[in-house]
Amino acid sequence: MTNPVLVEAIRGALVESRHRGAVAVVDAAGASLLALGDVERPIYPRSAVKALQALVLMESGAAARYDLADEELAVACASHSGEPGHVAAVTRMLARAGLDGGALECGTHWPIHQPSAQALARSGATASALHNNCSGKHTGFLCAACAMGEAHQGYVSPTHPVQRAVHATLEALTGCRLGEDCRAIDNCSVPTWAVPLRGLALAFARFGSGQDLAPGRAKAAARLRAACAVAPWHVAGTGRFCTEIMQRFGARVFVKTGAEGVFCCALPEQGLGFALKCDDGAGRAAEVVTAAMIARFLPLDGAEQSFLDDFLRLTLRNWKGVAVGALAPTVVLG
Amino acid sequence: MTNPVLVEAIRGALVESRHRGAVAVVDAAGASLLALGDVERPIYPRSAVKALQALVLMESGAAARYDLADEELAVACASHSGEPGHVAAVTRMLARAGLDGGALECGTHWPIHQPSAQALARSGATASALHNNCSGKHTGFLCAACAMGEAHQGYVSPTHPVQRAVHATLEALTGCRLGEDCRAIDNCSVPTWAVPLRGLALAFARFGSGQDLAPGRAKAAARLRAACAVAPWHVAGTGRFCTEIMQRFGARVFVKTGAEGVFCCALPEQGLGFALKCDDGAGRAAEVVTAAMIARFLPLDGAEQSFLDDFLRLTLRNWKGVAVGALAPTVVLG
Repeated sequence: MTNPVLVEAIRGALVESRHRGAVAVVDAAGASLLALGDVERPIYPRSAVKALQALVLMESGAAARYDLADEELAVACASHSGEPGHVAAVTRMLARAGLDGGALECGTHWPIHQPSAQALARSGATASALHNNCSGKHTGFLCAACAMGEAHQGYVSPTHPVQRAVHATLEALTGCRLGEDCRAIDNCSVPTWAVPLRGLALAFARFGSGQDLAPGRAKAAARLRAACAVAPWHVAGTGRFCTEIMQRFGARVFVKTGAEGVFCCALPEQGLGFALKCDDGAGRAAEVVTAAMIARFLPLDGAEQSFLDDFLRLTLRNWKGVAVGALAPTVVLG
Repeated sequence: MTNPVLVEAIRGALVESRHRGAVAVVDAAGASLLALGDVERPIYPRSAVKALQALVLMESGAAARYDLADEELAVACASHSGEPGHVAAVTRMLARAGLDGGALECGTHWPIHQPSAQALARSGATASALHNNCSGKHTGFLCAACAMGEAHQGYVSPTHPVQRAVHATLEALTGCRLGEDCRAIDNCSVPTWAVPLRGLALAFARFGSGQDLAPGRAKAAARLRAACAVAPWHVAGTGRFCTEIMQRFGARVFVKTGAEGVFCCALPEQGLGFALKCDDGAGRAAEVVTAAMIARFLPLDGAEQSFLDDFLRLTLRNWKGVAVGALAPTVVLG
């Protein structure tokens, strides 16, 4: 099955590039509201399921034990930009568990946020694991390991109790059996299990509504969603899509990006979840598709529609700031 | 026409992402040796035709008048990484024409080469137009304008004599009429004309062989190719695909990348040219396709084949350096 073209990059009068992909929108009972392209083929959700992984942080008792605040819970669900505020939140979390950046097993990269990377270089310092966009999630895993009374070393291994708990959580929420044949290693060294988009959409419908979840899990999900709604900057960062959308819509939209063109989203008031992947892994196109799905399934007033329009059709500018084209959804997105 | 999947990104046991595209390989007489996907649809070549644009620098007499050396001619054909050596070559060229970075109309971005960007930040300086990957090409345009006795201001406009000369050169080499309907603005503010891949491949077969070119133009093309073969670092930079390929193969391969997944290439000894575009604009996939075409059409010894294998199947590593997957050509590429 060839997935449809969902987004086009336009330059001058012509389409310059094309992005294909698939989208599943389901309710918490698993009923399909929309399926574009192949929604049954397993895809790696990568960082798009960080909030589901963070359920283990809640359910292990670590969040309560270490008295984690909104910013800290939000950064545990984040692919953050490595700005000083993100690093500070991660450092605080680690300290609560008696740890520091040396315990992180995510590897190192420079901050995604360029001014922060430049400021770091100007200061004469270099990047550390704290700047890795996944350091908050990893700190969540470390806190969970400590609260569970487990050794935190090797917490990234699929056989570590923390990752076993993550695996069980993902199977329960997605309704899919996630065998070793669909397990790969993420760029931050933890396991990533391939799941059909339909299963991911169901997981986020459940995460957003609490439907079909045990009361404790529903409460944990609600707490994480509330934290991200209060502290959306901690989930991504300055100028980032997830942050801007959640700053505007608050608790009405939970949205999270994953590498290689993935997004997962919950619309709690509608009881809906959706998940999408661009075939080619393009994040720029996945953002347009996500904006299109929010515009289609979330009731909007005029100002909200106008806000989303800027994400739905993105003006592309050259190095002089001149508009040279646009990134736009195709008619397939409705 | 749906273009075939040419490259797959593999993670664990599954294909994570897929890149479609088209490739045209032709000889200097225009005979097709290979056509994968739609090679008749016009695509914007972007920076992949910088060497053709630089013919105007030669033919205007500017290269001789300003006594440009190999490094300077190579940087005029470059999408350089903004490393100090690139900036130095551009600065020297500008000085020969009595100009400085203030004359550049390409706009500013930070060096592509991250250590150079960090060193720039550490020094307390900021990026300038000299660091723009297109600054060498723009300096070529400025030198041409001066040698032609034209005002250099506004040299990026399609109505400026330099761009008119570029337009005529592109029409002649590609054998295509390039009307205003296929003209857009590139990210560095100069015009980019959409050309079918077949026409681009023909242009590079001619550029590489001199066949069907007037003697002066054939000599200018040979001089530019020789300069790039001698100074391939100046055409891209440290660790970059174009540089590494031309460092290895010297005058046997001329290769140049363009934004949005484009590559153009000449194999002078075979009298062949090829041009390709990934539908989604992915440079990572375009590099694999280019390596596959070189492996297919250039006679190689064992060491050369082994060298190319590293570009044909690229191991993907996570932030800890662990192999997590690969970028690999599909069987379509042969």
